[in-house]
Amino acid sequence: MDVDELAERLIAGERRALARAITLAESTRSDHRAAARALMARAAPHAGRARRIGLSGTPGVGKSTFIEAFGMMLVEQGLKVAVLAVDPTSARSGGSILGDKTRMDRLSRSPSAFIRPSPAGRELGGVARRTREAILLAEAAGFDVVIVETVGVGQSETVVAEMTDLFVLLLAPAGGDELQGVKRGIMEIADLVVVNKADGPLREVASRTRADYAGALRLMRAREGDAPGFPKALTASALTGDGLGTVWDEIRALDDWRRDSGWLDRRRAGQAVRWMRSALEHGLIERLYADPAVAARIGALESAVTAGRVVPEDAADELLALFLGPVTPEDGSDGVEQG
Amino acid sequence: MDVDELAERLIAGERRALARAITLAESTRSDHRAAARALMARAAPHAGRARRIGLSGTPGVGKSTFIEAFGMMLVEQGLKVAVLAVDPTSARSGGSILGDKTRMDRLSRSPSAFIRPSPAGRELGGVARRTREAILLAEAAGFDVVIVETVGVGQSETVVAEMTDLFVLLLAPAGGDELQGVKRGIMEIADLVVVNKADGPLREVASRTRADYAGALRLMRAREGDAPGFPKALTASALTGDGLGTVWDEIRALDDWRRDSGWLDRRRAGQAVRWMRSALEHGLIERLYADPAVAARIGALESAVTAGRVVPEDAADELLALFLGPVTPEDGSDGVEQG
Repeated sequence: MDVDELAERLIAGERRALARAITLAESTRSDHRAAARALMARAAPHAGRARRIGLSGTPGVGKSTFIEAFGMMLVEQGLKVAVLAVDPTSARSGGSILGDKTRMDRLSRSPSAFIRPSPAGRELGGVARRTREAILLAEAAGFDVVIVETVGVGQSETVVAEMTDLFVLLLAPAGGDELQGVKRGIMEIADLVVVNKADGPLREVASRTRADYAGALRLMRAREGDAPGFPKALTASALTGDGLGTVWDEIRALDDWRRDSGWLDRRRAGQAVRWMRSALEHGLIERLYADPAVAARIGALESAVTAGRVVPEDAADELLALFLGPVTPEDGSDGVEQG
Repeated sequence: MDVDELAERLIAGERRALARAITLAESTRSDHRAAARALMARAAPHAGRARRIGLSGTPGVGKSTFIEAFGMMLVEQGLKVAVLAVDPTSARSGGSILGDKTRMDRLSRSPSAFIRPSPAGRELGGVARRTREAILLAEAAGFDVVIVETVGVGQSETVVAEMTDLFVLLLAPAGGDELQGVKRGIMEIADLVVVNKADGPLREVASRTRADYAGALRLMRAREGDAPGFPKALTASALTGDGLGTVWDEIRALDDWRRDSGWLDRRRAGQAVRWMRSALEHGLIERLYADPAVAARIGALESAVTAGRVVPEDAADELLALFLGPVTPEDGSDGVEQG
């Protein structure tokens, strides 16, 4: 299938074309990359209309069950839902979140849903690029809601927040002491905190947990994109479905406010610029290590640094000079002698 | 004072010379950088002998009190102790860990101790470089133990683990439910888990918490540098001093095992290589943005990307070509026409 045909089928909303397009975008082969770029250019004018929702939660919070129940609710309302995953640890641990689609059995079988596991890849930067492209491709295929799921480790939440419009943090009911176990960084990016498992014997605990987090959120500094009353803390139960409607109502209320106020356009513009810079920096570093002069010298310098014969910063300078030519002195005062 | 004199005083163990040397290494002025590099080259042969200990803990765990009590114990044993801090959030929050030395009142007044707050700096990479240099300078000044403290946010633990020999995670006594609140990533790098505040009414809880973490550590995969029985979980009280001696004994046991087995040399060699690569990549990106052709074009491309007229990856390619020249096709098959 050529790029034009794939683009047409993608824009017509074929799920198989979307799967194929994402596979193409995930490839690192240079001919695939070229084809993916052409495809992205075709898809871009049709993208941008979905609600992009970042979602994170600690292990054991019931994230898959929540996404399944929440996604099915949206599908039953006539919406098309894509679920993408970002898992920077998948390469190391060998595992992959969402890899086991049976955890979202009903959703994965729905013709209005599309579930995609985290792309393999050692580096968060590479995973981020592929996920950003997958979001645009899903939008071009007509998906109304794109949920980008991530596990709560390291910097992955920040990366996901950077590519979505709003961020939902899923938590389990727990005692008040546990509050400080949540990374401050996550609380800072959360627009909605949802305490899951608010059913059966945990209903009361969930309600108290919600109140604790609502209190904590009130203590935090207001951010530029906060609609009145946000960030909010809610309870929900993926098991009974209680509260899922409210979660969706609040997501829409915040997202609509951000669209109407012009904030969303500014946010997405800023994201595009940072994406450009990230692509630029990653591309540059790839070229650096592919440079024949650098490749021929780096091994010897690594040995010298390892043995303590050369200071790491001096070795770096030598390689930089091999790649780019010698540094021009910034002040110019003694540049003549060096020339 | 010139670099030679500063180096001499540093190597003679003068605390004021160490403070001055670190200030020089923290400066971004190009003449200061050149002087700092000359100083580092002078200091490097005298460095490498300290035990480099990374230490992290969640807020409220009593980290400063612990370091004060632990550091004083070492000082009383005749050791020279340096405490450095890494806080990547200090630029954003305006705060600075260890900035308030009164939190370590006794230690900061001891002539055998040296306490240095986190260097200001927006970027974790820059903070890391300066801290690595501060470690080497402290070692050249004859410090026997270098504690690198970090707050438990984002990637700072990984960065600190990358520049130290072993990693201590400080935790507060807490219920078993809280265990999963600790990031898996931290547990993976911890060599010693120390449950602090094992005194008074919390003594029992601390003991149970220690057992919980000992169990959790046993479940984790063994790593290459694990001495038999490590990682370990201990209890301690900064208030009463109970357990601090054991913490030091275990640190020495592990560190000695790693030295004797040759693992420490390999680890430090690997760290030096990664430091070189990090310096190389950061230096390259600095040169990129300082390039006149890139600087003249980047604003227009950012506007185009913001407006959705250009795909971020295409804009990145254009800037890369401005900086380095056009890309040579990797396969070479159609390189002739492009030449």
